[in-house]
Amino acid sequence: MTYCVGILVEDGLVMIGDTRTNAGIDNIATFRKLHKFEVPGERVIGLATSGNLSISQSVLSLLHEGLLNPDTGQVETLLNVHSMTAAAHLIGRAIRKVYEIDGPALEEHGLTFDMKVLLGGQIGDAPLRLFHMYSEGNAIEATPDTPYLQIGEPKYGKPILDRAISYDVEVRDALKIGLISMDSTLQSNLSVGLPVDVLVIRRDELGAAVFHRIDANDDYFRDLRERWSKALRAAHLSIPNPPYGEVL
Amino acid sequence: MTYCVGILVEDGLVMIGDTRTNAGIDNIATFRKLHKFEVPGERVIGLATSGNLSISQSVLSLLHEGLLNPDTGQVETLLNVHSMTAAAHLIGRAIRKVYEIDGPALEEHGLTFDMKVLLGGQIGDAPLRLFHMYSEGNAIEATPDTPYLQIGEPKYGKPILDRAISYDVEVRDALKIGLISMDSTLQSNLSVGLPVDVLVIRRDELGAAVFHRIDANDDYFRDLRERWSKALRAAHLSIPNPPYGEVL
Repeated sequence: MTYCVGILVEDGLVMIGDTRTNAGIDNIATFRKLHKFEVPGERVIGLATSGNLSISQSVLSLLHEGLLNPDTGQVETLLNVHSMTAAAHLIGRAIRKVYEIDGPALEEHGLTFDMKVLLGGQIGDAPLRLFHMYSEGNAIEATPDTPYLQIGEPKYGKPILDRAISYDVEVRDALKIGLISMDSTLQSNLSVGLPVDVLVIRRDELGAAVFHRIDANDDYFRDLRERWSKALRAAHLSIPNPPYGEVL
Repeated sequence: MTYCVGILVEDGLVMIGDTRTNAGIDNIATFRKLHKFEVPGERVIGLATSGNLSISQSVLSLLHEGLLNPDTGQVETLLNVHSMTAAAHLIGRAIRKVYEIDGPALEEHGLTFDMKVLLGGQIGDAPLRLFHMYSEGNAIEATPDTPYLQIGEPKYGKPILDRAISYDVEVRDALKIGLISMDSTLQSNLSVGLPVDVLVIRRDELGAAVFHRIDANDDYFRDLRERWSKALRAAHLSIPNPPYGEVL
């Protein structure tokens, strides 16, 4: 399993992804799921993947090699596409290409062709954007109404996002809330695990403000987890007791 | 969908269940999922169900009518079984009986025979117990190590349970934490909805301490939801900012 979340706020974008992959609970490994494509001062793009690891890796390989754009005749990569829309189309073509190659055999063996992508970033003076892409290669986009998107196992980490994230939240708060959301998932689901990768992009900086790996020894994340646990306990203790029933 | 949770602590048992059923998102109705079987001073049993409504209702009908125990030749109901183990066996027989009647036709139409039960309670001077029963009629039981069990949609409401519930929590706190867990689920999943039914059993009282329906006008629950939202926001604000990146 996987948990990746992207949060688009007024001043920037936060992307967080775990690194655990598993084929059965006794076959666990660490693979980076959050990738950065950057030409400082010109573009910065984050890409997070969930689903079948072989599909994700094949898609990434194609993106690194470059894919022909049939409309322009050019070989495109995330480092040369001219817009975030074109980046989403390029990734869609890569996913469909891998489906063409591996999809039928996977399906013959009863496996689903499953891959999801979070794509975020900014190219030149166009807006900073965040997309959620599907196994079919199509995409939806975050808006101020729904500023966060998740792939992988979204449920454990959703309550805090639903309550604390809005488009006007500051970037550093979005990062903190995203890390709490990740912590809730790590705490409740063994198939999501440390280390956790973080990418923060501030609007119009056209470069990563943060691209950092949080491992088990990360003091800040350890402190955040402890404080959050304590705060949750304190929060429920501060709520009055239920008035139902005389004896309670 | 459904969300029901049972929490067994040293001094008692809390069971909470929502009431929303849906067959598609445009076909939503209210059905009680948490039921009480009580002979004051002698026994008190709570039963919560999730899964296919027709299966749950058929099982409940059989439990009300009574089922023959092939070992004793007696017709058993939850009001006359001699122990909680026998209660679990009785429910298991009821589930298997409904499977016998409806299972093959459901499966012919590509539907899964899906029903889960939370069974909790105490009979006489035997211990207060809590079980999770499956569509196959078998059961697992809560222990001090894992004092809570969930059926339906467990994920949104699990983080708070994982952090705040232990066997030595007081009953009233278990109720409060259970309601917060329900609130997290209501907030994030439209297929779980008010009203919410609550059953609280204190150990050795052999009667319900609370059997209450919480609707949208319930002042305490409304206050709890507001306070919890505020407390979550305050909790994340009290955590220091991430030290990653100079600009944050």
